[in-house]
Amino acid sequence: MMRRDLEFLLYDWLDVEQLAARPRFAEHSRDTFDAVLDLSEALAATYFAPHNKKGDREPPVLHPDGTVTVIDEAKTAVKAYASSGLIAAPFAPELGGMHLPSCLGRSAMALIQAANPSTSSYLLLTAANAALLAEYASAEQIETWLAPIVEGRYLGTMCLSEPQAGSSLADITTRAEPCPDGTYRLIGTKMWISAGDHDITENIVHLVLARITGAPAGTRGLSLFIVPKVLPDGTRNDVMVTGLNHKMGNRGTSNTVLNFGEGGDDQFEPRGAVGYLVGEPNQGLAQMFHMMNDARIGVGFLATAIGAAGYQSALRYARERTQGRPIGVKDVTAAPVALIDHADVRRMLLAQKSYVEGALALCLYCAKLSDDVHSSEGEYREHASQLLDVLTPIAKSWPAQWCLEANNLAIQVHGGYGYTTDFDVEQCYRDNRLNAIHEGTHGIQAQDLLGRKMVMGGGIGARRLFDTIQQTIDSGRRHGGELARHAGNLDRAVARMRSVTEVLTATDDVTVRMANASLYLEAVGHVVVSWMWLEQVIAAAAVTGVFADGKRAAARYFFAYELPKTASQFDVLATLDRTLIDLDPAQL
Amino acid sequence: MMRRDLEFLLYDWLDVEQLAARPRFAEHSRDTFDAVLDLSEALAATYFAPHNKKGDREPPVLHPDGTVTVIDEAKTAVKAYASSGLIAAPFAPELGGMHLPSCLGRSAMALIQAANPSTSSYLLLTAANAALLAEYASAEQIETWLAPIVEGRYLGTMCLSEPQAGSSLADITTRAEPCPDGTYRLIGTKMWISAGDHDITENIVHLVLARITGAPAGTRGLSLFIVPKVLPDGTRNDVMVTGLNHKMGNRGTSNTVLNFGEGGDDQFEPRGAVGYLVGEPNQGLAQMFHMMNDARIGVGFLATAIGAAGYQSALRYARERTQGRPIGVKDVTAAPVALIDHADVRRMLLAQKSYVEGALALCLYCAKLSDDVHSSEGEYREHASQLLDVLTPIAKSWPAQWCLEANNLAIQVHGGYGYTTDFDVEQCYRDNRLNAIHEGTHGIQAQDLLGRKMVMGGGIGARRLFDTIQQTIDSGRRHGGELARHAGNLDRAVARMRSVTEVLTATDDVTVRMANASLYLEAVGHVVVSWMWLEQVIAAAAVTGVFADGKRAAARYFFAYELPKTASQFDVLATLDRTLIDLDPAQL
Repeated sequence: MMRRDLEFLLYDWLDVEQLAARPRFAEHSRDTFDAVLDLSEALAATYFAPHNKKGDREPPVLHPDGTVTVIDEAKTAVKAYASSGLIAAPFAPELGGMHLPSCLGRSAMALIQAANPSTSSYLLLTAANAALLAEYASAEQIETWLAPIVEGRYLGTMCLSEPQAGSSLADITTRAEPCPDGTYRLIGTKMWISAGDHDITENIVHLVLARITGAPAGTRGLSLFIVPKVLPDGTRNDVMVTGLNHKMGNRGTSNTVLNFGEGGDDQFEPRGAVGYLVGEPNQGLAQMFHMMNDARIGVGFLATAIGAAGYQSALRYARERTQGRPIGVKDVTAAPVALIDHADVRRMLLAQKSYVEGALALCLYCAKLSDDVHSSEGEYREHASQLLDVLTPIAKSWPAQWCLEANNLAIQVHGGYGYTTDFDVEQCYRDNRLNAIHEGTHGIQAQDLLGRKMVMGGGIGARRLFDTIQQTIDSGRRHGGELARHAGNLDRAVARMRSVTEVLTATDDVTVRMANASLYLEAVGHVVVSWMWLEQVIAAAAVTGVFADGKRAAARYFFAYELPKTASQFDVLATLDRTLIDLDPAQL
Repeated sequence: MMRRDLEFLLYDWLDVEQLAARPRFAEHSRDTFDAVLDLSEALAATYFAPHNKKGDREPPVLHPDGTVTVIDEAKTAVKAYASSGLIAAPFAPELGGMHLPSCLGRSAMALIQAANPSTSSYLLLTAANAALLAEYASAEQIETWLAPIVEGRYLGTMCLSEPQAGSSLADITTRAEPCPDGTYRLIGTKMWISAGDHDITENIVHLVLARITGAPAGTRGLSLFIVPKVLPDGTRNDVMVTGLNHKMGNRGTSNTVLNFGEGGDDQFEPRGAVGYLVGEPNQGLAQMFHMMNDARIGVGFLATAIGAAGYQSALRYARERTQGRPIGVKDVTAAPVALIDHADVRRMLLAQKSYVEGALALCLYCAKLSDDVHSSEGEYREHASQLLDVLTPIAKSWPAQWCLEANNLAIQVHGGYGYTTDFDVEQCYRDNRLNAIHEGTHGIQAQDLLGRKMVMGGGIGARRLFDTIQQTIDSGRRHGGELARHAGNLDRAVARMRSVTEVLTATDDVTVRMANASLYLEAVGHVVVSWMWLEQVIAAAAVTGVFADGKRAAARYFFAYELPKTASQFDVLATLDRTLIDLDPAQL
């Protein structure tokens, strides 16, 4: 069913077949796209779905000798995925790739993510790592480190956080000492490193943010390093796992505390983990954000995929399980009906559908913008880039919030059974809770949206967003009927969003402006997803049949029940409320 | 801190010392009340809190011989609680009790629930079971079964659900065959039976809903039986645990599949589990609902207590943990500040406070109404009873929804650490998820509120609620200032609630009326908790100091950020929206 929705979104809505008209994607056609989706769907069913529960029950183990092992099924799955060429696919032919458009690559990955969020995370991180290397690494580094990654022989990580520096990257203390041979020795501790160690591949390529001795304080002094687990000469680098984090969910992904350069022998100087500078010094944060923005879209897809998996389980259960009789039926000898025949259960299912498919549309829209940035030119490219910048924090945070709520409802549809480990939905709920935390918390996304993206370039990003939504509203109005009514509702919400944005950005007091940034993110998110729903029903307007009717029903739900929630959010934002600022923390 | 809040709510707000003026509570005073709270707080700290995590990690085990064992710490804790006299406390002196008012008993239990939700559940179910026996059992049954319960030698359960009958009690199939000696033999399978087996006490008293052979179909044919694990002659009754449910949370409480009468030897007739009828035949549902309504308030307290525990953890962490600098501080060499100094973190803390303390006020208000029902007469008692009826589904569901959200925010305040098992909040989140499911799901509470409580007696319950809230609004207006503004906002919301209630109850089409019952429950819940916040700040109006200021800040938050959410909910309810009814399930 997610496959069916992907096809609608890719072909009927985003018209991605047109990408083949651009030089970068000239080798492609709907045939190659469908082949990728077929391949991914088959890999998901054969290699990933079967061990999703087992990975949760048997998480990676840190052994006394410092090695980390994962279950065999995860290794087999990652290798099968790599062998299929899907790690290499986004890259140039020289690297064994096929310039697969991002929106196809993301779709293929989403099918894997829905089947097994934890094992897919090894691939997601590696893809982001590889994209960064392709962009910034030297030819020699690409040869040495990226080539084996796209072949599936190495996996990658991103190492930003430290025990004392999570959201605050300015406070990173890992240091890098230059050596005469041009390499560096890194010393420090990194925290929350997903896939930081495992026995899936022979080597792991860590991309590490660190401060070269003497570099400026803050994020301006951060540089990016390649720090491999195994050095080119085959010896172990001085990178040690000192602990595994034991998590509520996403348990199949190893999550590590990594010590760089603290296992060194004191007799040798300089001790430290050998690292190779990527690009120029002090450019680390900008480079990492190239990868981070990409990873944030990836997290949006991950949250969406887990939401979709839970929705599928709930839908299946609601069709099969019988319980009680509809409201108003007094005859207790009448046969019980399926759960799906109760209005309250339909509410929970339709809400899930509207969250999951709304989120998927938003994430795919961003992936398509990313393709536009990589394959078009001039003003078209510039607009795509501006819009992608603005939408990225929303595409990261909205699915994390609302597809978690979808999983919450999926449990509720199951009743007591959903709370047990005999069914899948409780794991969805635990797995999905991570997504509002990693790759920038909800609050960090809010700061990014209101503090940076909506004000950048004198507000050009904000205007781009408003203008683009307006085009959809105009299109909806031209369709008339229900679509025109949705368009009218969206128009009013956008007008409100625009005026509230003006109120907020007009204030010079940045403390006041940002005090309710999270609320702003949430309100704007709901408006943006309403826009995505209007886009979808416009694309479905010419289509008859139950699938298109389902799109219309979900849009009807979203416009009737969800979009109106933004009114009270914008109301309080417009007051520049000082409750949080004036609060004396002792009162808490 | 929960203790401090309880004292404010009990003494400064509800003025429970006045209860001592009533004959039933004549032996009491603030001294005896404080002694109970002291005792409970000490038991919570000494016996319950220390094994909260261990109970989660080492859930009850079903052994091949059919016995279920729990960790020793849980046994010790339950025994310490029983020895303290707190199980007996609510009952009459003849039973070893002291007629402790419900609002004190609930407060004492809430301190235990916050310390260890799972182990406390054995006590909660037993208390509900014992209350039912005290009300409906014969003198002989009280002597045989209730006496050892109040002494702490037996624990109790309530056995309603079956594998095919969860929310739909009309479909219960467990049957009871009468025997010549006046006892019954029960045959059937019960599901989701919490505390259904364990080795904490020598015996377990199951209260079982079953259908006497030949009784009517539906809930009118259900009778209630005492079915002990061990018979009076010391032999095992034919009650077998055939499985334990493995849950996402609340893992320390055994949750069982119980077979009644299927372990019998075919050579003997009638085989079955020996049961003793409570009261008259076919009165089982009414009797069970006496216990169930009480248990629903207990679930509200449980959800609230877990919310409070998470809030305490988050607050402690936010004061201790430093990270980053406030918005607008550009100097990266400035020392990092505590999390609590970030507006976004304060938002999450203040939201938790407003949910948790709003829920606690609502639950305690209901407990006080229960005391009024048991200790007053005439119109005053009648009004209390009507109000309690209307508020019960809200006191069950609102804390389950919003104190879970509080736990969600508690994780978020912790960032990545909150997602790990090294901290407490992920367990709070898992434990609390149960509360929207058991003792009547969220949807069942919604049906109870809109389908029964708001229409009973020609709408007398609804009018009682509106009138009582109106008194608070009038009082708030008389205070002037911020309280008058809150009162004005509440007045508008109540007017909206009243008119929407009229629209809904005026429609003869029950399918339309009930289609959005859950949304109605949620909107009314937010209005009711706003009322609870106005009540609290009125009680705090004469009080200076940081505690009272905290109440005012939380109320300010709730009125500014939460109550306005109801506007869009009432809007859609007023339209009698048919989206859910008209939906073709094939579109999902």
